[in-house]
Amino acid sequence: MADESQKWVLMVTAQTPTNIAVIKYWGKRDENLILAINDSISVTLDPAHLCTTTTVAVSPAFNQDRMWLNGKEISLSGGRYQNCLREIRARANDVEDEKKGIKITKKDWENLHVHVASYNNFPTAAGLASSAAGFACLVYSLAKLMNVQEDNGKLSAIARQGSGSACRSLYGGFVKWVMGKEQNGSDSIAVPLVDEKHWDELVIIIAVVCSRQKETSSTSGMRETVETSALIEHRAKEVVPKRIIQMEEAIQKCDFATFTHLTCADSNQFHAVCLDTSPPIFYMNAHLIGKIISCVEKWNRSEGTPQVAYTFDAGPNAVLIARNRTSAALLLQRLLFHFPPNSETDLNSYVIGDKSLMEDIGIQDIKDIEALPPPPEIKDKVPAQKYKGKISYFICTRPGRGPVLISDDSQALLHPDTGLPK
Amino acid sequence: MADESQKWVLMVTAQTPTNIAVIKYWGKRDENLILAINDSISVTLDPAHLCTTTTVAVSPAFNQDRMWLNGKEISLSGGRYQNCLREIRARANDVEDEKKGIKITKKDWENLHVHVASYNNFPTAAGLASSAAGFACLVYSLAKLMNVQEDNGKLSAIARQGSGSACRSLYGGFVKWVMGKEQNGSDSIAVPLVDEKHWDELVIIIAVVCSRQKETSSTSGMRETVETSALIEHRAKEVVPKRIIQMEEAIQKCDFATFTHLTCADSNQFHAVCLDTSPPIFYMNAHLIGKIISCVEKWNRSEGTPQVAYTFDAGPNAVLIARNRTSAALLLQRLLFHFPPNSETDLNSYVIGDKSLMEDIGIQDIKDIEALPPPPEIKDKVPAQKYKGKISYFICTRPGRGPVLISDDSQALLHPDTGLPK
Repeated sequence: MADESQKWVLMVTAQTPTNIAVIKYWGKRDENLILAINDSISVTLDPAHLCTTTTVAVSPAFNQDRMWLNGKEISLSGGRYQNCLREIRARANDVEDEKKGIKITKKDWENLHVHVASYNNFPTAAGLASSAAGFACLVYSLAKLMNVQEDNGKLSAIARQGSGSACRSLYGGFVKWVMGKEQNGSDSIAVPLVDEKHWDELVIIIAVVCSRQKETSSTSGMRETVETSALIEHRAKEVVPKRIIQMEEAIQKCDFATFTHLTCADSNQFHAVCLDTSPPIFYMNAHLIGKIISCVEKWNRSEGTPQVAYTFDAGPNAVLIARNRTSAALLLQRLLFHFPPNSETDLNSYVIGDKSLMEDIGIQDIKDIEALPPPPEIKDKVPAQKYKGKISYFICTRPGRGPVLISDDSQALLHPDTGLPK
Repeated sequence: MADESQKWVLMVTAQTPTNIAVIKYWGKRDENLILAINDSISVTLDPAHLCTTTTVAVSPAFNQDRMWLNGKEISLSGGRYQNCLREIRARANDVEDEKKGIKITKKDWENLHVHVASYNNFPTAAGLASSAAGFACLVYSLAKLMNVQEDNGKLSAIARQGSGSACRSLYGGFVKWVMGKEQNGSDSIAVPLVDEKHWDELVIIIAVVCSRQKETSSTSGMRETVETSALIEHRAKEVVPKRIIQMEEAIQKCDFATFTHLTCADSNQFHAVCLDTSPPIFYMNAHLIGKIISCVEKWNRSEGTPQVAYTFDAGPNAVLIARNRTSAALLLQRLLFHFPPNSETDLNSYVIGDKSLMEDIGIQDIKDIEALPPPPEIKDKVPAQKYKGKISYFICTRPGRGPVLISDDSQALLHPDTGLPK
C-alpha cells in the first residue's frame, strides 16, 4: 500500500442518467438480490436535464466509508449500499497514479475506505427514479476508481442490488432489464437495445405534479402487490413477456403507434395491479392524472395517429413522450393551456430542461400562456378546464446517453485535498 | 277480449329493491342477451330506503306502450325494454277480475298495450344500481299483471335482459347471479343464497359522493374492458370462481372477516381492470374514495378484526357494510368527523334512511358533528383531515327483502281511471 503518512486522496467523478420504464418493473422474486418477476424496458433520459453526479474518493486518511447525498451525510449501513460496496470491492484491481505517486494493490482495497458525494439535479424520491441514477452512479464511479474490469452489463447486476431500476441506467437509449433465471442473479442484467441516436426524434416532457416524498415506497408497495394481488402473477408471466417482444420490435422499427399503445397500456396496468393490492395502493393523484390522460387520449384520437405516449411511475408525475419536435411543441401548448402557472411563478423555472421548445411555440411570458386558445379537439360545448398552479414545473428532455466519467476536476463534489464535500 | 267500449284500466303496483355487488359483475359474453363472463354475488338493500316503485296498467283504451320514469315520459323503443316486454308477453296467461268484470285471455295480451310508471326513491344513474331495481320491478310487476306463472328465478332471466344486475333484485338477502352456460341464456339466472334475516346484524351506510350522472356508462365501460384489458379474462376465469366459493361460505357462516377481505379485494380488482382498459376508465373519484378507504383500512387494522367492508360500483359512491350496529355507529361517527356537511345543510337531509343510528351516537345538530373528536386510530402527529361538503348525503340501511306487490291502490303511480301518471 502507499505510504499511510502520505495523505493523498484519489478521486473519480461520474455522471449517470435516470431512466423511465415503458414496460414496468413491479414485483421481486428475491428481495435481497433484487430480482424482478418480469423483464422491463426503459428509455434513458438526457443527463443534461436529469442525472446524478457522484464523486468517489479513496484515501488512507479515511477511517470509515461515508456518503453525502445532496450535501447531507447519510448512512451507508443499509443492506443495499453494503451489497454494492462489497460486490465492487471484490472486483477491485491494482491502481497506480504515477504522477501523484499512488500505488494501490488489489488486496489494499479491503482495508481502504471510501467517501462518496452524490447530487441529483432533480427532486429526490418523487417518483423520478432518483435511486436508479444514484445507485448506477455509485457503482459506475466506484468501479472506475477501483479499476474494475467488468463491462457495464456486469456492473448493472451490481447496481441492481442497490435499486432494481438502477441497472437500466448503465446504458443510454432504450434498455432492457432481463429478469434472468439464476438464483444468484448473475444473469439478471441490463442489455442495451438501441442507443440514444436510434430514435432521436422523440421528445420527452415530464410534468412534475409535486415534489413531496411519495406515500408508499416502491419496495413495500411491490412486496404488498406480490403478496396480495390476484392479478400480478398473470401480468408477470402472461402479459409482460408478450409486451416485451412487441415493444422491442416497435423500438427497432421506430413504430410510434405501437410504442404508444404498449407504453400507455403498461403504465395503466401497473397502476391497476397497485389498486388490486390489499390494501390498495393509489400512486396516481387520479384527478390530475386523469386530466392529463384524457387530454392526451383526446388529442391522439383527434389526430388519427398517436402523437404522445404517457407513462406514470410510482409517484404522481406524468412522463409524456412525443413522437417528434412538432408534436412536442403542440403538446407543450396543450399542457400550458390546461396547467398554467400561478401568476407569481417565474416562467423560467416553470419550463426547464430544453427551453428551446418554448421558443418554438413563441411563449415568452405568462401573458402568452393566458392567450393560448383551447386545443381544437375540445368541443365548443364543453368549457375547457384549467388547473392553475397544480403542476410544479415541466422538464423538457429527450432520450440520452449512458454513464460518463467527468475528467474536469473542478466538477468533483469532494475536495481534492480532504476528500470531504466542497 | 273484454268489451272495448268498457274503458277499464287494470293495474298492478310493485316495489323492488336495489342491490350492491360484493363480488362484481363486469364484462359480458353476449351483449344482446346480457350474459356475464363471471358469476357475481350481491346483497339486496332494504327497499324502505332504496327501491323502485312501479305501477303497470293495461287498458283497451291504450294505443301504445308508454313509460314514465320519475314523472318524465321516456321511450320504450330501446332493445332492452323491448326484450323484457316481449319475453313477459310471451308468458302471459288468462286474467279475470270478476269484480270489475274484466276478462283477458292469454291471446289478448298480444294486442293490448301497457302503461308503466316508475319512481326511484334515490338518484338515478349515479352508480346506485337504479337500472337494477328498475328493470326488476318492470318485469316483476308486468308478470303479476299478466298472470305469468314462472317463478322469480325464471323472471330474473328476463330482468337480466333489461340490465344484468337487475336479475339479482328478484330476491332479498344475499343473491348469486349464476353466469350459466347456455347460448340462449336460460340458465343465466339469480339464485337466492340466504334471506335477509340470515345475517341481520349487518348495517349498510352509503356515502353518496355526488348525484351527477356517471361519465362512462357501465355498458360501454365493460365492453371496452373486455375488448382491451389484458387482465379481465384472468379475473373472470381464474380469480372470481374461487372468490365466489369463498364468499358463499363466508355468507353462510356469517364470517365477517372473510366477507370483508373478499368484498374489498373484489371492489378494488373491479376498479383495477377498469384502469387496465384502453383508454383507462376511472370510476373512482380517487382522492375522496382514497380517503374513505384509508379511513376504513386504518380503523380495521387498529381494531384487529375488521369492522367495516367497503365496495364501490361504477360511480363515485361508497357502500360501507358494518359488522353490526355498534360498528355502524362508530363508522358513522368517523364519516361525519371526516366529511361534515356544509353549515347551511339540513342535518335531516344529510343522514337519511334509518335515522336511529344518529340517536345512537347522540347527534342532533351540526354543532354535535363539529364537536366530534378525531377517531383514536389517527395518530396525534398527523392532523386529522376534514372534507366539508364533499359528500351529498349518507343513507343508512341494511340487507332487505325482495320484490313485493303493493295492494294499497293509493300508492299506485298511475290514475285508476285514465292509466296516466297521477
